[in-house]
Amino acid sequence: MTSMKVASTLDELRESRRSCASPFGLVPTMGALHAGHVALVRRARAECASVGASLFVNPAQFGSNEDLSNYPRTFQRDLELLGATGANVVYTPRAEEVYPPGFQTFVTVDEVSRPLEGASRPGHFRGVATIVAKLFLVFSPDRAYFGQKDAQQVAVIRRMVRDLGFPLTVVVVPTVRERDGLALSSRNAYLSPAERTAAPVLFRALSAAAEAFDRGERSGDWLRATMKSVLSREPLAEPVYVSAADPETLGELGEVAGDVLLSMAVRFGSTRLIDNFLFERGRWETGIREG
Amino acid sequence: MTSMKVASTLDELRESRRSCASPFGLVPTMGALHAGHVALVRRARAECASVGASLFVNPAQFGSNEDLSNYPRTFQRDLELLGATGANVVYTPRAEEVYPPGFQTFVTVDEVSRPLEGASRPGHFRGVATIVAKLFLVFSPDRAYFGQKDAQQVAVIRRMVRDLGFPLTVVVVPTVRERDGLALSSRNAYLSPAERTAAPVLFRALSAAAEAFDRGERSGDWLRATMKSVLSREPLAEPVYVSAADPETLGELGEVAGDVLLSMAVRFGSTRLIDNFLFERGRWETGIREG
Repeated sequence: MTSMKVASTLDELRESRRSCASPFGLVPTMGALHAGHVALVRRARAECASVGASLFVNPAQFGSNEDLSNYPRTFQRDLELLGATGANVVYTPRAEEVYPPGFQTFVTVDEVSRPLEGASRPGHFRGVATIVAKLFLVFSPDRAYFGQKDAQQVAVIRRMVRDLGFPLTVVVVPTVRERDGLALSSRNAYLSPAERTAAPVLFRALSAAAEAFDRGERSGDWLRATMKSVLSREPLAEPVYVSAADPETLGELGEVAGDVLLSMAVRFGSTRLIDNFLFERGRWETGIREG
Repeated sequence: MTSMKVASTLDELRESRRSCASPFGLVPTMGALHAGHVALVRRARAECASVGASLFVNPAQFGSNEDLSNYPRTFQRDLELLGATGANVVYTPRAEEVYPPGFQTFVTVDEVSRPLEGASRPGHFRGVATIVAKLFLVFSPDRAYFGQKDAQQVAVIRRMVRDLGFPLTVVVVPTVRERDGLALSSRNAYLSPAERTAAPVLFRALSAAAEAFDRGERSGDWLRATMKSVLSREPLAEPVYVSAADPETLGELGEVAGDVLLSMAVRFGSTRLIDNFLFERGRWETGIREG
């Protein structure tokens, strides 16, 4: 832990990066770290000679009506966790360094950014793609680690990497869940006790659709209806969307012929949670229960 | 010349690039090379240990009503010229490799892309920024060379490099001109003999405004009016725009306090020519006459 460099400026980061052995793994985060982030760092640690992380609450990916100012910030704890998990360098920039005066360059990934999260959060994935492109350019990672929980983010970044030709591998790490199935999220901290009790309904809805799929159900409409039906039995849950889509293009599927991404966003009061199960290469990726 | 590698695929390019010494200089081109391009390669040759060029008529920077299909293509001659000028590697990709099926990622530079060329050519600078970002990622140049003639392209690329943090230096090379002042351009080949005779009016209009500036004139309106007045005396010239702007933001200037970019686009029949003079660091950059 004592050997982790904390770089708060670009110059410090470039200097630290130069002394890192290859292959280099990058874990971009917005801080408020939980066991899901730790799983990313551990995977990077296992696959790479050195590991970098970033702690940056990226204003460009929050809408004007979103929770930027309230987004949980646990900076000292985050640094301790990264150090204990074996990160070699952490970049903790100020927003003014990332977006200097006159900043006006954005990376957009068109079609994949539009549905699902993109429909509720205009500009969100433009902000994500832009900051990730910047982090890729300054860190030059050989491998970059993202959580399966943000499935659309994964699709956007994979498409960006392929289209622009970033010379790196995107590694997707399974969602980490509480014992009752709730996917870990920095936003879970916003839930009231009653909402927290209700929140595993996302996992139950996804599980019900996956079970229908395993029994041979291939109608997209039926899979979506199955998830909606489970959600509708939880009075605190207000569904934003429910989807059974192609994992790469995110287009909704009429009939599922091969892979499928089941995903949803659900509001509990003012808190918005997302979750997903991915069927790929003949098996389900549903995440890992903690503890 | 015999040592120049011609890479027609990404894999060939990556292999050739690996054996190039640093610093590496990149000259992106759309082919149809003339003495202006040769000046870029010569400058790169003088400043870098190895030099790469690209020959790619980028469909993404042409509008649907523009001259993509007619754009001059002189492939064999271009290769000979690059070899003779000392390029080490030339990338000549097919469009299908640069823009594979499903391609949907674009780099946009917002404000600087909007006026002047951007106003007549919607999407042009999005196409330019995207292909240049891709070339930067695959070539990893230490220095990249662009002509002053495309002044707005220079402003867009400089802004992109700064905003996204590409680790390279943008080098701008003076415009090369015919003896009568006409700036070299691949599009000059489209001019009829009468239009060719009329075309140096751009240079004369810029010269008149620069002379007014040198006599102390600092009104943007007056400088623009001076250029318009010269253009109006040439019946074959139809001005598209005439500008006296901040060289970095490209905002039109009311009063010129420091630097200024004088620029214009003028149609001769179906051919559209651009030209500019740049006042920077206390002196004019007006280009170089060919010997």
